[in-house]
Amino acid sequence: MIAHSFRGETFGPAQRLHGATYIVDATFRRKELDAEGLVVDIGLASETLKSILKTLNYRNLDDEPTFSGQNTTTEFLARSIFERLATAIRDGTLGKEGAGVDAVCVTLHESHVAWGSYEGQV
Amino acid sequence: MIAHSFRGETFGPAQRLHGATYIVDATFRRKELDAEGLVVDIGLASETLKSILKTLNYRNLDDEPTFSGQNTTTEFLARSIFERLATAIRDGTLGKEGAGVDAVCVTLHESHVAWGSYEGQV
Amino acid sequence: MIAHSFRGETFGPAQRLHGATYIVDATFRRKELDAEGLVVDIGLASETLKSILKTLNYRNLDDEPTFSGQNTTTEFLARSIFERLATAIRDGTLGKEGAGVDAVCVTLHESHVAWGSYEGQV
Amino acid sequence: MIAHSFRGETFGPAQRLHGATYIVDATFRRKELDAEGLVVDIGLASETLKSILKTLNYRNLDDEPTFSGQNTTTEFLARSIFERLATAIRDGTLGKEGAGVDAVCVTLHESHVAWGSYEGQV
Amino acid sequence: MIAHSFRGETFGPAQRLHGATYIVDATFRRKELDAEGLVVDIGLASETLKSILKTLNYRNLDDEPTFSGQNTTTEFLARSIFERLATAIRDGTLGKEGAGVDAVCVTLHESHVAWGSYEGQV
Amino acid sequence: MIAHSFRGETFGPAQRLHGATYIVDATFRRKELDAEGLVVDIGLASETLKSILKTLNYRNLDDEPTFSGQNTTTEFLARSIFERLATAIRDGTLGKEGAGVDAVCVTLHESHVAWGSYEGQV
Repeated sequence: MIAHSFRGETFGPAQRLHGATYIVDATFRRKELDAEGLVVDIGLASETLKSILKTLNYRNLDDEPTFSGQNTTTEFLARSIFERLATAIRDGTLGKEGAGVDAVCVTLHESHVAWGSYEGQV
Repeated sequence: MIAHSFRGETFGPAQRLHGATYIVDATFRRKELDAEGLVVDIGLASETLKSILKTLNYRNLDDEPTFSGQNTTTEFLARSIFERLATAIRDGTLGKEGAGVDAVCVTLHESHVAWGSYEGQV
Repeated sequence: MIAHSFRGETFGPAQRLHGATYIVDATFRRKELDAEGLVVDIGLASETLKSILKTLNYRNLDDEPTFSGQNTTTEFLARSIFERLATAIRDGTLGKEGAGVDAVCVTLHESHVAWGSYEGQV
Repeated sequence: MIAHSFRGETFGPAQRLHGATYIVDATFRRKELDAEGLVVDIGLASETLKSILKTLNYRNLDDEPTFSGQNTTTEFLARSIFERLATAIRDGTLGKEGAGVDAVCVTLHESHVAWGSYEGQV
Repeated sequence: MIAHSFRGETFGPAQRLHGATYIVDATFRRKELDAEGLVVDIGLASETLKSILKTLNYRNLDDEPTFSGQNTTTEFLARSIFERLATAIRDGTLGKEGAGVDAVCVTLHESHVAWGSYEGQV
Repeated sequence: MIAHSFRGETFGPAQRLHGATYIVDATFRRKELDAEGLVVDIGLASETLKSILKTLNYRNLDDEPTFSGQNTTTEFLARSIFERLATAIRDGTLGKEGAGVDAVCVTLHESHVAWGSYEGQV
């Protein structure tokens, strides 16, 4: 549940400080299931995603140094969260078996009609 | 898509400036349908609701004089929108037939799991 | 999945022959659960609702004698289906225990944003 | 919200004149975000899609010369809308930046359980 | 995510040991908002509901002494959870302000089409 | 609506006998529509999927010989249902035209936030 504003005439009234609820989904893909019949340990995956989102939630993104000079659009945020999740997978945060995940897709739903996502290889 | 902050320890991290997407539903009730078989002219009702929401959308509610000194919680906003809608109905904005609406319920969905609503007689 | 048209300027382009998918929900209420811990036998209730809907589905409602001279609005159809369901309950179609149902609400969702319903005592 | 009928025994009762609500989603893909951090200007994209849908909405598709002799199935309509959207992108209707969109997917939801889509390169 | 079986011919194949995911919603009602503009502290309410559900989740309800000899139908479980929640409110678990809640409704969604709920005064 | 249990510490409380409602979607893809403008005969496809699910529904999967020694995870079940559906397509169960389906994706929704799917060529 973040506040932010956008720069650029394209954004019309969204140039004003406003906000959004982002419902964030992460999809994990792999060719073959792991030894226990899983794509990923959903408990570890949820914790990891929650810890990434905690650094963004209940904030005014205009004040976050990480995003300085950047329009924090839905699609930009999707990529940003994807990158943190991909790093976590490579670092073993999702467990030894989690390293077998090939690709991740992060989707941010900003309303019942609008969403953005980023999909890439781990 | 508004920004706001809350005062009071109850709100924890929501005391910081943050934001929310509110998906707003309005429900209209009446005992008997009008001459054309309608509860309300859905075109007029949608326009009226949209014009009310336009005064709130893409804003930082902390800066709106109307809400000065007020926690703009989901349930508070639901009542505020209900009152504007009830006034519009009594003023004939929903047409002559629209005046037959008995009760209205306004619901604000702030995420896929949290919502607040206000229901009252017109 | 019905076709129909409406008479009256209120309806704008919906005066032309057009159509709608109606997703129909029925809610059954009672004060105390029956001997088996149920509000209603969901199997019987589903069959009964389906047999009512079968008489409407894949039709042009403008050609149905039952609706002659009537705008078949969402709210009108909700009442019409409610009445057939209430009759079925009184006739014992939902079983002996089903007769204990006090009230029924029928909702027709015509899109992701528009719906109409009728609620009444059995 | 269209009316139509289908030819062919496969369609059973859908050979009769009936109708459907289609909720239409369009997904735009590109490799890199544009200068403002966007896949597409969602305002222009929504207007363009709405103007395409306006030529179909509240009509009996059996009477539209464009679809003469054609079963207007969900999947056929998805492709038809895709093609008009792809043309609009190539024509610059989505702006100079919009021309960077690589692929579009158009999905028509005809009920809570049935949908069809068409995905292709622009 | 519970396992259970039902006794009684009404239940057909559900007499066998099977299972269900229940998505549980709780709705809180009150006449006037509290001093902070809330119906209820959503943080406390979520924790309380989660702690109630934890005693049921990932279990075979046929083996739970509390439900001995009882068909654990959706509507029965809704009442059972309602009662625990109403007790928690009266005991002050939702805070001093939470005691102002008048009524609670607990809904268990067992699939995309079937749900049961119980609503009562606190 | 199945019961099952999992073996392996990864599963935590899900090692106990519990259950799940799986809402199962199947998506069919093909390059060109068939002669009637369809990807697949949705009537035949629904019947085929239902007959596959009937062999799993209202059961304790721990007792099914087919799954002996296997963790019946959501992703494993998605592949299992995919394989039966792909076989049915190759066997002509979806009709002569149905044989033109190139790829199928089976998705099992186990709650409002968790799902698993398997996608492959037919």
